[in-house]
Amino acid sequence: MSKRAMILFAHGARAASWAAPFERLRGMTQARLPDVDVSLAFLELMSPRLPERVDQLAAEGVVDIALVPVFLGQGGHVLRDLPVMVEELKAKYPQIRFTVATAVGEAPEVLNAMADYCAGALS
Amino acid sequence: MSKRAMILFAHGARAASWAAPFERLRGMTQARLPDVDVSLAFLELMSPRLPERVDQLAAEGVVDIALVPVFLGQGGHVLRDLPVMVEELKAKYPQIRFTVATAVGEAPEVLNAMADYCAGALS
Repeated sequence: MSKRAMILFAHGARAASWAAPFERLRGMTQARLPDVDVSLAFLELMSPRLPERVDQLAAEGVVDIALVPVFLGQGGHVLRDLPVMVEELKAKYPQIRFTVATAVGEAPEVLNAMADYCAGALS
Repeated sequence: MSKRAMILFAHGARAASWAAPFERLRGMTQARLPDVDVSLAFLELMSPRLPERVDQLAAEGVVDIALVPVFLGQGGHVLRDLPVMVEELKAKYPQIRFTVATAVGEAPEVLNAMADYCAGALS
């Protein structure tokens, strides 16, 4: 079993359909990182929540968890809620190294792909 | 003045910092579509709201508005709130042609760029 993990951290929503692109993103990221356990976790409304997912990974002996916020903007959820949760998780699991990436929506290549898509949406 | 417009429709947030990547996306899309008026509008918490922005464009004589939901997933906001707003806008402005694109987060190229970014976030 892999001892490294990546959690794609997303908001969550009431509509189950909302999660579809996140599931695809998880699969595509997993394909790029075959030796890493890549999973989704949510802030609210969907399961697993982030602390629950970390509990599972800790129980599996994972010692390194990379968190990637799958958010378009860095608002309160990424700037306030997530750091609080990560501090609590670090205190609970001092043996695990946690890293937190910048939100995907801030990445220039992602913005570039979004701009291409928007421009192409003109009919 | 351009008679075609594109509105990048985003959620909105309390933190002003949240809008930064959307402003960049607007600029990048505008650069790709120099003959189109590209602007942002929000569902809530930020200005302008979508109906307000359409009012402005209608007053400027715009006859074609392409709406692109800048959302990662197609949840209730995209599947329910947006169509209701668009129907109201179509009734209010029958002279304007409205088109609504699929949410940016559903676009394969965008997901691909996000997966690349996630994979690269492993330190």
